Amino acid sequence: MMISRMRKQPTGETAETLALKQREIAVSEFFLKNRHLLGFDNPRKALLTTVKEAVDNALDACEEAGIVPEVKVEITQITDTRFRVEVTDNGPGIVRAQIPKIFAKLLYGSKFHRLRMSRGQQGIGISAAGMYGQLTTGSATRILSKTASGKKAHHMEVQIDTKKNAPTILKDEEVDWKPEFPASQSGGKAVVSNHGTSVAIEMEAAYVRGRLSVDEYLKQCAVVNPHLQLHYRICLKKTQGDNADTRGRIPPHDENAGNGQKALPDGERNSMPCEYLNETPWTTFERANQYLPPQPTEIKPHPHGVELGLLIQMLKDTKARTLRSALAEDFSRVSSRTALEICEKAGLSPKASPARIAHHESEALFRAINATKLLRPPLDCLSPIGEEQIVAGLRKEIEADFYTAVSRPPTVYRGNPFLVEAGLAFSKPDPAQELGAEEPIRLMRFANRVPLLHMSGACAITKAATGVDWKRYGLPQPKGSLPLGPMVLMAHIASVWVPFTSESKEAIAHYPEIIREITFAFQECGRRLSVFLHKRMRQMEYERKRNYMAMYIPHLALGLKMILGFNDKQEKTLINNLNKMLERTHLEA
Amino acid sequence: MMISRMRKQPTGETAETLALKQREIAVSEFFLKNRHLLGFDNPRKALLTTVKEAVDNALDACEEAGIVPEVKVEITQITDTRFRVEVTDNGPGIVRAQIPKIFAKLLYGSKFHRLRMSRGQQGIGISAAGMYGQLTTGSATRILSKTASGKKAHHMEVQIDTKKNAPTILKDEEVDWKPEFPASQSGGKAVVSNHGTSVAIEMEAAYVRGRLSVDEYLKQCAVVNPHLQLHYRICLKKTQGDNADTRGRIPPHDENAGNGQKALPDGERNSMPCEYLNETPWTTFERANQYLPPQPTEIKPHPHGVELGLLIQMLKDTKARTLRSALAEDFSRVSSRTALEICEKAGLSPKASPARIAHHESEALFRAINATKLLRPPLDCLSPIGEEQIVAGLRKEIEADFYTAVSRPPTVYRGNPFLVEAGLAFSKPDPAQELGAEEPIRLMRFANRVPLLHMSGACAITKAATGVDWKRYGLPQPKGSLPLGPMVLMAHIASVWVPFTSESKEAIAHYPEIIREITFAFQECGRRLSVFLHKRMRQMEYERKRNYMAMYIPHLALGLKMILGFNDKQEKTLINNLNKMLERTHLEA
Repeated sequence: MMISRMRKQPTGETAETLALKQREIAVSEFFLKNRHLLGFDNPRKALLTTVKEAVDNALDACEEAGIVPEVKVEITQITDTRFRVEVTDNGPGIVRAQIPKIFAKLLYGSKFHRLRMSRGQQGIGISAAGMYGQLTTGSATRILSKTASGKKAHHMEVQIDTKKNAPTILKDEEVDWKPEFPASQSGGKAVVSNHGTSVAIEMEAAYVRGRLSVDEYLKQCAVVNPHLQLHYRICLKKTQGDNADTRGRIPPHDENAGNGQKALPDGERNSMPCEYLNETPWTTFERANQYLPPQPTEIKPHPHGVELGLLIQMLKDTKARTLRSALAEDFSRVSSRTALEICEKAGLSPKASPARIAHHESEALFRAINATKLLRPPLDCLSPIGEEQIVAGLRKEIEADFYTAVSRPPTVYRGNPFLVEAGLAFSKPDPAQELGAEEPIRLMRFANRVPLLHMSGACAITKAATGVDWKRYGLPQPKGSLPLGPMVLMAHIASVWVPFTSESKEAIAHYPEIIREITFAFQECGRRLSVFLHKRMRQMEYERKRNYMAMYIPHLALGLKMILGFNDKQEKTLINNLNKMLERTHLEA
Repeated sequence: MMISRMRKQPTGETAETLALKQREIAVSEFFLKNRHLLGFDNPRKALLTTVKEAVDNALDACEEAGIVPEVKVEITQITDTRFRVEVTDNGPGIVRAQIPKIFAKLLYGSKFHRLRMSRGQQGIGISAAGMYGQLTTGSATRILSKTASGKKAHHMEVQIDTKKNAPTILKDEEVDWKPEFPASQSGGKAVVSNHGTSVAIEMEAAYVRGRLSVDEYLKQCAVVNPHLQLHYRICLKKTQGDNADTRGRIPPHDENAGNGQKALPDGERNSMPCEYLNETPWTTFERANQYLPPQPTEIKPHPHGVELGLLIQMLKDTKARTLRSALAEDFSRVSSRTALEICEKAGLSPKASPARIAHHESEALFRAINATKLLRPPLDCLSPIGEEQIVAGLRKEIEADFYTAVSRPPTVYRGNPFLVEAGLAFSKPDPAQELGAEEPIRLMRFANRVPLLHMSGACAITKAATGVDWKRYGLPQPKGSLPLGPMVLMAHIASVWVPFTSESKEAIAHYPEIIREITFAFQECGRRLSVFLHKRMRQMEYERKRNYMAMYIPHLALGLKMILGFNDKQEKTLINNLNKMLERTHLEA
């Protein structure tokens, strides 16, 4: 079956004809076609992704500016399939020159080139939401931003030129505008801030309640951000005439009402009125405290996480004049003395020019670095939620008998510091439920304080949760699945760079170091649960035995009465004494 | 809990300080940091991804040029953790000017801007593999390419400048080189081609056998590409002294040997000799035939799959002078007459200049397009494998009692034509196996003739397979899982644009149209399986009854002999007659 002569089809291309077709692809063209990579697979998810990106940006901006965040999310249904999302914050605002690029250029931002924990990291999200809106409705992203009390606000409308990945400015004017927030249910007055940003995007979307909804996202967001004051309302179009047909379309505050989240009528005039304004009241997720989480600091890369190719690049790019100072200045945990030690191990002159290190010398340097003991990366770049706050968050949202939380010490994957926190809430099994008909536990996933709703199956947290042997801790568990039982399990990973499985940031990639840490955290939670369950089981066993014995006490007393000739009073005393004895035994157990 | 005064932390940023930190992010920087998005999560997967990207490119190039493909994959272990991957094809070659961009620039290629079925589609893969090699070893991608018999070959070495996403050329020379392929096991001679390309990348990697290995990938590749002649060898470093320690490191041909894939010693000198050359023979996956699959044609976008924003963009970009001709020329399935009809419906002049259509006019046009009946998109842009070839492929690789395959008619998601094919192979359950201890079926996934190994949990194919009610077809199925049984199930999706869940192209996104089609294909396979299983069960039941009755025949004959006074001969005749009767009944059943 040898081919000595290559058969060509008449339509065959040649190297030359193929060359004519090669073209550069703008990153915006790429993501426009691959919009599902950014979380715009379908209208329902598009709505969630847009809210998520806007809220993430708002929270990051507030925290970086040291402002206790207040955020307002308003979703308005315009036609059956078209929605307008408007997110307003009290952040520091954005200077005019940056607005078009931030909102209408993919891969642009301040968070990518630094090693520091934040919600956003890619410089894609909000521009992608605008691009999706533009694609599906032809509309522009509207931004209002005010940076200080003395200054006017900017009003801009931008679109993205997808062939160039560059912004097109449709409107650019100064206006009088201040971010306004409605009153909260605790009776406080409405707030007007002197600075902040509002972004509004119109898009094809769909609103469905449930586990993957905007409501759920905002609720979980409030759990892991106790310092956030969050207002939310969704104004849905009334279905004509028929009110029975509004299933899944009713604003969600009735769902939250029983949960301490009472909806209040809006006493203030909104800056952007809509025709549904007076129909739908605001839901406020109250902040628990005014204290911002500690500001994470920015760090330099740790030498043990730097690959050979990156090392070569860093030596080429360094501003330092000598190899020794390049090592000490551009990396964390390398003192000038350690730098000298590394140079000596590698057989290189510490005074060599970093740009002139040859390839084989870099390899020697690389080996020397990895053979040198160094302190772990500095870990103040991470801002964990903390065991106490996790338990408080779970208590707030989930009714259960047992709560616990674990914060693991920070560690490192690929040179990036990260830490894992886990918590669980376990309630009594529903006695009405048939034995063996238990549901899988509910798993809540968070990354850098952002709830992850979609793509659970692809996430390292799910992988770790199914990998733990929960039978050991007293929960039934089908092979390769989540355990069964009335339990909520949560995990939070905080890192300077969370490795997501896709740009839509819905699941964490399967780095072994990360899965190991989550597993450890879950196992520790499991052990504590196991102690609780054992104790409860012992207690229930005692209860059973005690009830059993208690049943016999009257008969015993009757017998003794007859044998010893007790009177009724003596019999009662005997019963009392026997009961007390039983109780004492129980208490001592 | 109202905030009238915004508290600022002393380290707080302002809009102005934040603005200074905003920066553009090169797409190569983005993917360098997010390399797991491209399939470079870990050393093991990196090896697979690199082979996959190089083989995909080789096959695409050959098929576009009308050349029956012959491909050689050689993996050489250099150190414990470093491997060199070299893939050589007999394709049309690449002209010199294009080599650097194709191999060292992300988002560059010929396949993105067209609607035509091909394996590659993004213009990322092979450059990303080179970038990963560069990052982990500091080395360059080496390309050899020859475009025609009269011409010399180009020898280039390129790296990617990740900050600019642009190639850096380290070597550029003309050499005498021809792609050489080893002899095949059927005794044919080795082949030297007059054109072709060879790409070699050195990288940190790991080789592990199993379901996610290069071996498995190439095997599945051979199944869905019956016209491909594929040579493969992996030269692993001997572990010093100890041969017992080579678990998982032995070349894979012993695994394939029992499968008709015999390994032959390499009679030819390889152009790039390595020190292990004489130790490791080549494994050849023989091509089944010389016939290329029909060339899929390129199509224009179908109007019903175009969103409003894209329509506006297309009208802006068109070369046509009137609205009517723009509609007829830039879209598929729009004749000049239909174009006129659409213009009339929208209330627009067919002679209007397309660039001057206002926003509200576009919306009217958009509505008019979607209110107009149009033919479905042309479907010759797809090249299915075919039911016959699928069954042949399954027969070749899987020993079973029952094979079937289904090719669904082409249909459309988001305006993109696609079709789904499915197949299954079912063997007798292993009688040695305990009842109830059955394993889940094995699911094989393909997209545009490329095997998908990783991320099974996130794939639309898995979603469809678990969503089908297999109990209805006679297979046990745990809730929400794959069914259990000795079965291989496969699905192939062919499309002009396969929507993958990530750039690494490992799983298909959950578009409802796609899941529906896969489900239908699986259900049809299931129905056929069900018929087979019922028939087999009936047959087994008959068998049982027949054996049962056969047991009584001698006793019956003995009784009759005694009652009727038969002699031995008459008794034998009677037994024979009764047996014949039983057989006839059985045959008639």
